Amino acid sequence: MSSNESAAGIAHVYRGTFVHATYHTAVEILEDGLLGVDTEGKIAFIGSGKEVDRLSQKWGFEAFAVTQLGQHEFFMPGMVDTHIHASQYSYAGTALDMPLLQWLNMYTFPVEACYKDLEFARNVYTHIVKRTLRNGTTTACYFATIHTDASLLLGQIANDFGQRALVGKVSKKETLPVVTPRFAPSCSATLLGHLGEIAQNNDLHIQSHISETKEEVNLVKELFPDYDSYTDVYHRHNLLTDKTVMAHGCHLTDGELKLFRETGASIAHCPNSNISLCSGMLDVRRVLNHKVKLGLGTDVAGGYSPSMLDAVRRTLDTSKALTIQDTQYHTLTFEEVFRLATLGGSQALSLDENTGNFEVGKDFDALRVNTDAAGGPIDLINHGEGPKVYVAGKRVVPFVERP
Amino acid sequence: MSSNESAAGIAHVYRGTFVHATYHTAVEILEDGLLGVDTEGKIAFIGSGKEVDRLSQKWGFEAFAVTQLGQHEFFMPGMVDTHIHASQYSYAGTALDMPLLQWLNMYTFPVEACYKDLEFARNVYTHIVKRTLRNGTTTACYFATIHTDASLLLGQIANDFGQRALVGKVSKKETLPVVTPRFAPSCSATLLGHLGEIAQNNDLHIQSHISETKEEVNLVKELFPDYDSYTDVYHRHNLLTDKTVMAHGCHLTDGELKLFRETGASIAHCPNSNISLCSGMLDVRRVLNHKVKLGLGTDVAGGYSPSMLDAVRRTLDTSKALTIQDTQYHTLTFEEVFRLATLGGSQALSLDENTGNFEVGKDFDALRVNTDAAGGPIDLINHGEGPKVYVAGKRVVPFVERP
Ligand SMILES: [Zn+2]
Ligand SMILES: [Zn+2]
Repeated sequence: MSSNESAAGIAHVYRGTFVHATYHTAVEILEDGLLGVDTEGKIAFIGSGKEVDRLSQKWGFEAFAVTQLGQHEFFMPGMVDTHIHASQYSYAGTALDMPLLQWLNMYTFPVEACYKDLEFARNVYTHIVKRTLRNGTTTACYFATIHTDASLLLGQIANDFGQRALVGKVSKKETLPVVTPRFAPSCSATLLGHLGEIAQNNDLHIQSHISETKEEVNLVKELFPDYDSYTDVYHRHNLLTDKTVMAHGCHLTDGELKLFRETGASIAHCPNSNISLCSGMLDVRRVLNHKVKLGLGTDVAGGYSPSMLDAVRRTLDTSKALTIQDTQYHTLTFEEVFRLATLGGSQALSLDENTGNFEVGKDFDALRVNTDAAGGPIDLINHGEGPKVYVAGKRVVPFVERP
Repeated sequence: MSSNESAAGIAHVYRGTFVHATYHTAVEILEDGLLGVDTEGKIAFIGSGKEVDRLSQKWGFEAFAVTQLGQHEFFMPGMVDTHIHASQYSYAGTALDMPLLQWLNMYTFPVEACYKDLEFARNVYTHIVKRTLRNGTTTACYFATIHTDASLLLGQIANDFGQRALVGKVSKKETLPVVTPRFAPSCSATLLGHLGEIAQNNDLHIQSHISETKEEVNLVKELFPDYDSYTDVYHRHNLLTDKTVMAHGCHLTDGELKLFRETGASIAHCPNSNISLCSGMLDVRRVLNHKVKLGLGTDVAGGYSPSMLDAVRRTLDTSKALTIQDTQYHTLTFEEVFRLATLGGSQALSLDENTGNFEVGKDFDALRVNTDAAGGPIDLINHGEGPKVYVAGKRVVPFVERP
């Protein structure tokens, strides 16, 4: 045992099934695995349960202190939401009836003004952080609003509850840790240039939207006639770096995807939003073939669900819809989508040195899932108090006793 | 007060918000409504909360015995699942990786054999009935297997738990209350003829599958070369009646839809299944324009979710996917889809004299929904015991207290 290995003591050891993605395998399942977490929250070792005696000696923990997972339990990596508007959570569900630009005018712009009120902000931001954590989002890349105090508050709330968060104050004029132009149509070339400079000088993360709808692509063409493409607008202002994540990209050309690859910029695929707003369907297979990094995003509230499992399902749905249109299409497998929701997201945010899967040295960001928990996975109207369901006037949930 | 009205006494009176569909309005919201349920479980009266004194005198109940819904509560009609394979619940989630005919061979046919074991059947059928009830399905039209005892047991279990159920034993040779040929490719013309005769002589409900995939349509063309269409195969054996519900119908021609309308037969739209198996996308608007009755189905386990709310969401998704392909498409609204999940389903099953919305004389099949219940609607890994979520080795759900 090197002195280095023992520098941080072992805080927890778990034995059981671990499911995660690696760079080589979409889903790797470790049965009877043994994983140690050090006092700094990092994964100290991963081995086999059979090695418990050797490892307990090496790492200095008591074998009886190992937490044994149940037969129906497993650990999976926490999920990474690469694109979510915290400030829009208060009107989630409203994006079902109108196209993007109309929806922005009806809901987004008016409600954002409320975030100058810190108590309003605290209420919504506390709810979204708690909700996404409960849904298994351990890392979130948030859009906030133009209000500095409220955006700082969101970072504080995520920190207090223990969520790993990137927070971007939407820029029309200044920046916060994540440089966040809303999208090219709302920014001047001068502003974009300043943002690119700030990001470059401070090695900051960058997030924005790109090529969500065809209307928006046409608008950018009109507003920036001297640029080759929507992507070129960001690129020429130094806003495409390997710390950039751009939401949507439904209508990117091959040439634009090539620019993404060359710069190391990534795409946040937000299928619930793209379907709900009828924006388009991103061909994820094409993006992956271009070797562009891609993660999943809920895009609350363009997407109505703050659940990354929903993003997983909608990603599969979109890929299957493309398959219905073209039976030769190479449909995504759910294993691949599992990877996108975890490791893929951490790569898209350039955080895969810290999170995304179970590797020694990474932080232990994890979900302990019990597939046999009392009450089971709940699809619907099952609230804390339990739903009440009536058939012919007789209450049937809570269940009547069977004779 | 007529003696007729008082024949059955009032068992319950509810005051609050009622949301339902009518034949004229996709969503009607009664604020401060007052609804009385008689001792037989039927809706005795619907009025305004302001009329409580008059109605309590007329119907002979005490005003203080009225159940007042909370500010965030409402009643909606129980949902109608027009197509669900109870016997397939044990392998829900497996239909994600292969097309229909391959999936039937891999899972459906082998597992069905297990239903000769009544304890196996009891276990699965109890779970699916409890799960769908908890999800708000008050009426379900079930496919079972070819085993008579197990199919009777499913009917018994639904009855014991209080769910309104139509149960069809899958027919290769005989019938139960719902005449249920699996689908034309598995039936001879002689068998179809017998089934049609039995249904006709006994005025029975009929359910089957139609035109789910293009491969299946072609197969039927080969197997029944003397018929005009897939629909014609059923029609000429008297299997299209106003008590017939056919699942899917993704690839029906206008001529076939015309036959549906003329006979009063209905379609069970199962979007989760159609997407999961890449079967096709039903153009619901076209079906409605043909004035063909249409309800929603989960089609467990071709669809992976036993929740009718999932069917609602997937119906909207499919309509939006069609809109992305053709921006002139007349997208379904969520109000319309709400109607399909309730009143539409009851019409599709020819049960709308008994259920589907809140009308005097219908049975009170209802969901009492509290949008503000502790814990809220749960999207994900929130089990009875509560999930555990870790970030950097620190447990963050259950939530740490904020400083
Ligand atoms: Zn967005
Ligand atoms: Zn079916």
